Amino acid sequence: MTTIQGIAASPGIAIAKAYQLTAPDLTYEKVTTTNPTKEIERLDKALKISNQELEKIKAHTKKEMGDEHAEIFSAHLLVLSDPELINPMKDNINTNHVIAESALEETANMFIDMFKNMDNEYMRERAADIQDVTKRVLAHLLGASFPNPALIDEEVIVIANDLTPSDTAQLNRQFVKGFATDIGGRTSHSAIMARSLEIPAIVGTKEITSSISQNDVLIVDGNEGVVVINPSDEEIATYREKQESFERQKEEWAKLKNEPTFSADGEQVELAANIGTPEDVTGVLDNGGEGIGLYRTEFLYMGKTELPTEDEQYDAYKAVLEQMDEKPVVVRTLDIGGDKELSYLDLPKELNPFLGFRAIRFCLENENVFRPQLRALLRASVHGNLKIMFPMIATLEEFRQAKAILMDEKENLKREGNKVSDDIEVGIMVEIPSTAVIAKQFAKEVDFFSIGTNDLIQYTMAADRMNEKVSYLYQPYHPAILNLISNVIEEAHREGKWVGMCGEMAGDPIAIPILLGLGLDEFSMSASSVLPARTQISGLSKEKLVSYKEKLLSMETAEEVEEFVKEKTE
Amino acid sequence: MTTIQGIAASPGIAIAKAYQLTAPDLTYEKVTTTNPTKEIERLDKALKISNQELEKIKAHTKKEMGDEHAEIFSAHLLVLSDPELINPMKDNINTNHVIAESALEETANMFIDMFKNMDNEYMRERAADIQDVTKRVLAHLLGASFPNPALIDEEVIVIANDLTPSDTAQLNRQFVKGFATDIGGRTSHSAIMARSLEIPAIVGTKEITSSISQNDVLIVDGNEGVVVINPSDEEIATYREKQESFERQKEEWAKLKNEPTFSADGEQVELAANIGTPEDVTGVLDNGGEGIGLYRTEFLYMGKTELPTEDEQYDAYKAVLEQMDEKPVVVRTLDIGGDKELSYLDLPKELNPFLGFRAIRFCLENENVFRPQLRALLRASVHGNLKIMFPMIATLEEFRQAKAILMDEKENLKREGNKVSDDIEVGIMVEIPSTAVIAKQFAKEVDFFSIGTNDLIQYTMAADRMNEKVSYLYQPYHPAILNLISNVIEEAHREGKWVGMCGEMAGDPIAIPILLGLGLDEFSMSASSVLPARTQISGLSKEKLVSYKEKLLSMETAEEVEEFVKEKTE
Repeated sequence: MTTIQGIAASPGIAIAKAYQLTAPDLTYEKVTTTNPTKEIERLDKALKISNQELEKIKAHTKKEMGDEHAEIFSAHLLVLSDPELINPMKDNINTNHVIAESALEETANMFIDMFKNMDNEYMRERAADIQDVTKRVLAHLLGASFPNPALIDEEVIVIANDLTPSDTAQLNRQFVKGFATDIGGRTSHSAIMARSLEIPAIVGTKEITSSISQNDVLIVDGNEGVVVINPSDEEIATYREKQESFERQKEEWAKLKNEPTFSADGEQVELAANIGTPEDVTGVLDNGGEGIGLYRTEFLYMGKTELPTEDEQYDAYKAVLEQMDEKPVVVRTLDIGGDKELSYLDLPKELNPFLGFRAIRFCLENENVFRPQLRALLRASVHGNLKIMFPMIATLEEFRQAKAILMDEKENLKREGNKVSDDIEVGIMVEIPSTAVIAKQFAKEVDFFSIGTNDLIQYTMAADRMNEKVSYLYQPYHPAILNLISNVIEEAHREGKWVGMCGEMAGDPIAIPILLGLGLDEFSMSASSVLPARTQISGLSKEKLVSYKEKLLSMETAEEVEEFVKEKTE
Repeated sequence: MTTIQGIAASPGIAIAKAYQLTAPDLTYEKVTTTNPTKEIERLDKALKISNQELEKIKAHTKKEMGDEHAEIFSAHLLVLSDPELINPMKDNINTNHVIAESALEETANMFIDMFKNMDNEYMRERAADIQDVTKRVLAHLLGASFPNPALIDEEVIVIANDLTPSDTAQLNRQFVKGFATDIGGRTSHSAIMARSLEIPAIVGTKEITSSISQNDVLIVDGNEGVVVINPSDEEIATYREKQESFERQKEEWAKLKNEPTFSADGEQVELAANIGTPEDVTGVLDNGGEGIGLYRTEFLYMGKTELPTEDEQYDAYKAVLEQMDEKPVVVRTLDIGGDKELSYLDLPKELNPFLGFRAIRFCLENENVFRPQLRALLRASVHGNLKIMFPMIATLEEFRQAKAILMDEKENLKREGNKVSDDIEVGIMVEIPSTAVIAKQFAKEVDFFSIGTNDLIQYTMAADRMNEKVSYLYQPYHPAILNLISNVIEEAHREGKWVGMCGEMAGDPIAIPILLGLGLDEFSMSASSVLPARTQISGLSKEKLVSYKEKLLSMETAEEVEEFVKEKTE
C-alpha cells in the first residue's frame, strides 16, 4: 500500500480518481513529417477540442464568477479562430514538413515576441492570451490535456501544488470529492475553503503532484491526513467502513444541532461560525452555529471592477442578519491590503505586506471606502443582532478614530430619517501583539474582543505562516500565545466584556480544552467544526481545565503544552 | 529664510554647499548639426572627463571597499575605450550630422538591446555597464555632472532621496559635513550611520532633493531637524553661535568620558555602544563607552564573495576584545536574511522578509555557517570579556539548540588543545514578542537579555518601520512596548540576570528616564550618544522615576507617555 502523509485540513473520507490540476509535460521532439496532410488534420483536431474546452470553461466561469472573469476566455477563443495565426501554421507544415507541434509553437512564439515587445499594455495581454491558448492546444497534440476546474465532469479527487482562491471558487462540490496539495498548512486559504465546502482535504504533502499519475485511484483520509494511492479492494473496503463510521459520527454530532453548548460540568459557551458571503449562512445553520463570530466582508469587494455601493452592501448584511434571525452576527469591517489586493484601489506594493498598509490602517485614511461600509452596516442593524468589529487595531487612537466615524455616520443616518439600532456592540479584533498586551486599557472602551489567532500568532512569533521555511514557528500552543490570550480574557472579564476567538485555533481539538480553561466566551470556527466542538466540550469539565491554567501559562514550549493537554484530555 | 523640517537623525550643525547625490535631468532635444567636427570634439571631451571621474571613483572604491567592489568600474572604463562602441558613434555624427548626444545614445542603446536579449548573465551585466557609462557621458555632454560620493573633494552637505549602505560606506568625513534625505526615520540605516560617523544629519524631509539646486548653501541643524536654504549672513552668524555652543556642550559631556554612570541619587547603570567593525572601537573609547552592548557581526560577511574563514573572524573578534581590555563585549551571532542578503548564500526570496528565514533560524539550519563563527568567538574569548548573544530567538528550543552547538564546539576546541574562557555569558536578543511575553521561562536559562527595540517594536505593532505608510505605528513609547520591556526586566531580575537594550530606543532622551525607572541595567547606543546620555542620567533621580512605573504602564497611548515624561523631566 503506497501512502503519502500530509496535514489533515478538512475531515471526512473520499475515494475517487485523481484529477491533476497541474500543467502537463509539454516537451516533444522536433522532427519532420512525410505526411503534412495528417499533421494539418491533427492540428485542426487539437484546435477543435481546445475550442470546446474553452467554451465550457467560459460558461462555467461566467456562472460561478461573473461576466468579467469570463471575458478572458472570450479572448482565448478569438485567438483560436484567428486566420492570421492559424494560416501561417498550416503554411509552415505544407512548406517545411514540420510536425503540428512545431508549427503551432513557431508561429505562436513569433506573435508572442512581437506583441510582448510593443509598448502597449493591451498588446502585451494579447501575448499572454496566445501563450495560454498555445499550451492548451499543444497539450492536446501531445495526447495530454490541460486541466481546469471547469472541465471536471465526473467524481474526482483534485491534486495540485496549491489551490488558488479562483481555483477553489470554481470547484464543483458535486464532482470534487476531496483534494490534496503539495504545500499549505491548516490555516492556508485552501484548507479553510475545504472546511467551508465540507470537502475532505489534505495539504502540505510535499510530494503528491509528483507521485500521482492521471487516473490513479486515491483515498483521501481527511481525518488522519493520509492519501492512499491505488488501494487494493480490501483497502477500499476498510476505508468504506471508516467512511460509514465517520458518517455515523456526524449523525451523532447532528443530534446536538439545535442544542446550546455546555461543558460536562454545566458551563455554557457560544459556538459560532466564520462566513464570507450570505450564501454561507445555510451551512452555519445546518451545522448548529449559535451565531456568526466573523463575517469577512472582503468578498463583497473582490472580483469586481469598482467598490460595492452602499446599497449592495446593505443588501448583503441584511440578508445575513435576517437569515440568522436574532442570533448574533459579528461583522468585521474591510480587511484589505497586505496579501489581499483590489485591482480598482491603488494599494502600494510593499516589501513586507503583512506588516503594511492594510485593514483599519487603510480604512482610516480612505474614508470614501470606510464610510459607505459603516452606513450600510448601520442601516442593516435593524434587521437582526449586529455587532461590528474593526480589524488590525494596534493603538487606542485607531479604535477611537474608527468609532468616532461610526458614530458620526449614525448621526448622519438618523438625521436623514433612517432607523438605526441603538444596541450595536462595537469591538475589535485582537490580532496585533500590542493590543493583546494592553488589553486592560482597551477593555475599558470596547464592547468585546475577538482574538484573531492566525495573525496574532504570526506577529507574536515574527514568522510568516505562509513561508514554509519558518512555518514551524506558527505555534498556537506556544506559552506566549496562551499568556496573551489569557491576558485578553482576564482583562475583558474584569470590565464585564466578552471575548471571542475567530482564528483557526478556535476549532482545533487540542486548543479547545485550553481555551475553555482560560475562560473564552465565544468560539468561532468553520461551520463544519461546530458540531464536533460541541460534542467535545460536552465531555470536558471546565473546572478541571481552569485548574490547569497557571501550570499551562508557565510551561516552556508548545510541545510541552500539547503533550500535557493530550494526556489530561485522553 | 527658507527652511525645510525633517527628522533630527544625528546631532550637530553643519554649514556648506549642497552636493546632490541624485541623477541629473538627462533629456535633450534631438536636433541635427552643421558642424560635425565640433560634435566629435564635444563627444571626445565628455568621454575624457568621464574617464577621469571613473578612475577617481575606482581608486576611491578600492581604498574604501576593496578590490572586488572596484572591479565594476574597471568594466566601465573598458566600455569608454572600446572602439567598437566609440567608432560607430563618430561615424553616425559624420554621416548623419546628428549631435553627440544622439550619436552616443543610439549606438549605446543598440548594444544594450543586443546584450540584454542574450541568454547569458555575463552579457546582461555588460548591458548594465554600458547603460551606466552612457548616463555619465551624456550628463557631461549636457553640461551637468553625474554624482558619486567618491567625486566629492570639497566641504559639502550631501543631499539625496536616501543613502544606501554603499553610499554611506564611501562618504569621506573630511569633506562631507552633513547630510539630508527625503525619506527615512531615526532608525533607518542612513540615520544610524550618521550617528556612528558623528555627521549632523536630517532624514525624512520629504522634499529636500526637489527643493535644492546644485551649489545652494545649506545649514543642517541636526539637533532641531531643520535645513536652512541659502541663509543670510546674519543667519549664518546665528548658526555659527549655535555650532559653538554645541561644541561647548560636547566639551561639558567629555568631562564625563572616563567616569562611570550614576543617576542623581547614586544608582549605577552601564552605558555601552553598538559597533559593526573593529575600527569602530576607537569611537567607543573616545566617547566614554563602558563596553560594547552590540557587536553586529554581519559586516564581516558583507562585501565578499564567500564566507569569512574562522581565522578571519577570530582576528576581528580578538581585535575588538583586546582594544576593549577587560570591558564587556557582547557579540551578536550572524543576523543575515530578511532585508540583509549575501550574494554567496542562496537565501530564499520571501514575500515578508521581516517575518522570514533569518538570523538564528538560518544559522540553526546552516551549521556550516554557524559553527565557524562560534569557534572563532570561543577562541577569541581568552582575549577579553566576551559575552555571546543569539538574535531572533522566538522559542526556548531555539536557544537550547544554539547553546548546545556552542557547548559542542567548546568541547571540540578544548579537545583540539585550544584555550577557551570558562566565563563566557550566553544570552539572547529579546526582539520577538513571544520571547518578551515568556521572559520568565527564558530567564531561568539565559545569562542575560538584550532588548532589540527596533525589531521588537515593529513586530509588536505589526508595522514595518521602513514602510512610510505605517511608520507612524513605530511607537517606542506605546504602553505595550513599555509593558513588555518591564516584564523582561522584572523576570530577569527575579532570577538574578541583567538586562541590556541595544535598539535605538536606548539612546533616546525621552526613553532614557522611562528605562531607568523600569530598571534597565545596560544601555547600548551609538557611541556619540553615550556622553549626552551619561550627562542626562546624572541629573535624574532613579527613585522618582521608579515611582512613576505603574502609572506609565497603565497609560493608554504613546502620546500620553511622551507628554508625561516631558513634564516630569523638564
